Amino acid sequence: MADPARIEDAADKVLGEVKRGNQVAVVVSAMAGVTNQLVDYCQQIDAGCDPSEYDAVVASGEQVTTGLMALALHKRGLASRSFMGWQVPMICDDKHGRARINDIPPDNLDQCLNENFVPVVAGFQGITKTGRITTLGRGGSDTTAVALAAALKADRCDIYTDVDGVYTTDPRMVPQARKLDKVTYEEMLEMAALGAKVLHPRSVELAMAWDVPLQVLSTFEPSVGSDLPGTMIVKEDDIVEKQIVNGVTYTRNEAKITVLSVPDMPGIAASIFAPIAEAGINVDVIVQNVSPDGKTTDMTFTVPKIDAERTRTLLQSLDILKGCEIRVATDIAKVSVVGIGMSSHTGVARTMFTILANNKINILAITTSEIKVSVLVEEKYTELAVRELHRAFGLDQEKP
Amino acid sequence: MADPARIEDAADKVLGEVKRGNQVAVVVSAMAGVTNQLVDYCQQIDAGCDPSEYDAVVASGEQVTTGLMALALHKRGLASRSFMGWQVPMICDDKHGRARINDIPPDNLDQCLNENFVPVVAGFQGITKTGRITTLGRGGSDTTAVALAAALKADRCDIYTDVDGVYTTDPRMVPQARKLDKVTYEEMLEMAALGAKVLHPRSVELAMAWDVPLQVLSTFEPSVGSDLPGTMIVKEDDIVEKQIVNGVTYTRNEAKITVLSVPDMPGIAASIFAPIAEAGINVDVIVQNVSPDGKTTDMTFTVPKIDAERTRTLLQSLDILKGCEIRVATDIAKVSVVGIGMSSHTGVARTMFTILANNKINILAITTSEIKVSVLVEEKYTELAVRELHRAFGLDQEKP
Repeated sequence: MADPARIEDAADKVLGEVKRGNQVAVVVSAMAGVTNQLVDYCQQIDAGCDPSEYDAVVASGEQVTTGLMALALHKRGLASRSFMGWQVPMICDDKHGRARINDIPPDNLDQCLNENFVPVVAGFQGITKTGRITTLGRGGSDTTAVALAAALKADRCDIYTDVDGVYTTDPRMVPQARKLDKVTYEEMLEMAALGAKVLHPRSVELAMAWDVPLQVLSTFEPSVGSDLPGTMIVKEDDIVEKQIVNGVTYTRNEAKITVLSVPDMPGIAASIFAPIAEAGINVDVIVQNVSPDGKTTDMTFTVPKIDAERTRTLLQSLDILKGCEIRVATDIAKVSVVGIGMSSHTGVARTMFTILANNKINILAITTSEIKVSVLVEEKYTELAVRELHRAFGLDQEKP
Repeated sequence: MADPARIEDAADKVLGEVKRGNQVAVVVSAMAGVTNQLVDYCQQIDAGCDPSEYDAVVASGEQVTTGLMALALHKRGLASRSFMGWQVPMICDDKHGRARINDIPPDNLDQCLNENFVPVVAGFQGITKTGRITTLGRGGSDTTAVALAAALKADRCDIYTDVDGVYTTDPRMVPQARKLDKVTYEEMLEMAALGAKVLHPRSVELAMAWDVPLQVLSTFEPSVGSDLPGTMIVKEDDIVEKQIVNGVTYTRNEAKITVLSVPDMPGIAASIFAPIAEAGINVDVIVQNVSPDGKTTDMTFTVPKIDAERTRTLLQSLDILKGCEIRVATDIAKVSVVGIGMSSHTGVARTMFTILANNKINILAITTSEIKVSVLVEEKYTELAVRELHRAFGLDQEKP
């Protein structure tokens, strides 16, 4: 929602869906830059500001676009009504700034739909049981849309973003990237968490939990009327022909921490990672190598780059690590291959390691799950690794 | 509320009042320019936009400053909580865009005050019985403040504006203008309606109806701690020594319409003014002169300048005025002297006319009420008339 003109474009898409015979409920985000401006106001006044008042301030951005979208729909001859979080009501817990939705009593919206009004709902915001305004935090508007689709038992939840779908990898890095027609929730989740900037993982999790079919579409392109113009995100059962690997993703936002010669004794991992978790630092990859003598071990893990120095300071303060050397590397990237088909095919990891070795890319650490293999590599090899893996797993677009 | 820095200044004033031992509830308006920006967004999308959605959009400006003010109070160590119109609740009728407040159940705010929290209430907005957001229109935030003061049975309602009080006349025009310590509601009402840009008449009317003592103060100047730093607006009984004339006001926003040779018969005034009122045009001064022959009359009245041409067209379309000449003059001003003491003193009008005559200023029309005398003059004489009347009625500041 960049500005009033973009709201009008989005209203055209809603009109198109209504003309196709669909009942539509709309969720809107704030205009571009507005939320940041509001956050900035709060921080100008008080950097460590009260989260309930922060919520009252930042939720106002969606109030504006919600009303404007209802106006744009009226102008197109559609009966429409705006709903703020408290009007739905979108009942949330009281974790201000990162609230979770507890309940969406559907009566108000159902009545609106039954009267052939298009409800326009403010994304990102809700109301606590005690009647305070709250916001959902990152990925808030997508999450609102999915939760609402679940509450209204919608056939589909379309998410308009600045990309026209989910790609096999970042098209800016690999021109041969292909748009996927379908991916599973699990794949999307891995791809979102691993750095594909399409949907926030939280909204995908919620869609998976409530079986809401999601479609990712571009705000910029005319889409209504074409068949499956974006990428559908669905249950595994709904994908007949499974690709072994569906995408190659990367992120440069992590730092690698290595603690050398940690005493190898029961509970050592907990005594390191518990204080890190308590400090609110998110640990991702963890690799532990037992040393030959069996008495000490090297511990390697990744944290978000912005938390790297805080993690170092924290580890240095731990008695149990007294005398251990701590290394922090920020020039790393995590490259992953993702695919639901992987769980029933062996050899994906081996192929991946072979490709990297053939390109003289050193692997710094490895983690795997049912549907992904991730490796840490030196940051300078990111593009090379992504391109070669994309090609090797048969994801390159066929030349026309 | 120009920006976060100004919100901090206002928070300092609240802190000062709390330190003086007062229980304080705060009402805030939107940041400068924000409401106009929001109105502009609405009009970009739909010039004749749905007023209920317009309200949802424009009410967001006060939501921002309400949360920011609560943050600024927290930072100063004051427990505080924001209240949007729907949280108070500020229950209004459903005349969107110009709603009137019907009821303010005080329980929520009383509870807040009893717990020693400072409630910060969004001005200008309310909620309808059906749960829609509404706004109060012009003078909205002042009106919210007065209504709230009445609901909470407050001892005083302080209104911070960009002037430091009510003056005997416009200080930019007459450097000798004096700030008044006290004026009555009635005088303030005349002065507000006649063009003194201090308080919206609506908020003064409400204060008068509910006996809320109002104080007008400057946002820009330190005021807390000084005794009666602004102007108190009070009941007539509370003013012991009444000035005959308390102020000289002027407005250049009116146009004079003259209809010549109107048939002088019963009901003629109604047949002219009823259609004008139906068109939403506000008629002020009305003067009717019976012509010597007793068969026709000349009708003179004023309307807002922006409605002048619309009024002319409307009058030309009336059958009853067929053949009548219609003159429109926009180069006029209305100059008034206002004072509660006038009602018990004769001679104010005579003094006024004499002063104007001595200065060769022609009077185009006259109206009077219990506490004012207004004259229409040619616009070019505005300053001269205001200065001479201000001096003649003894309002000039004594030279130090």
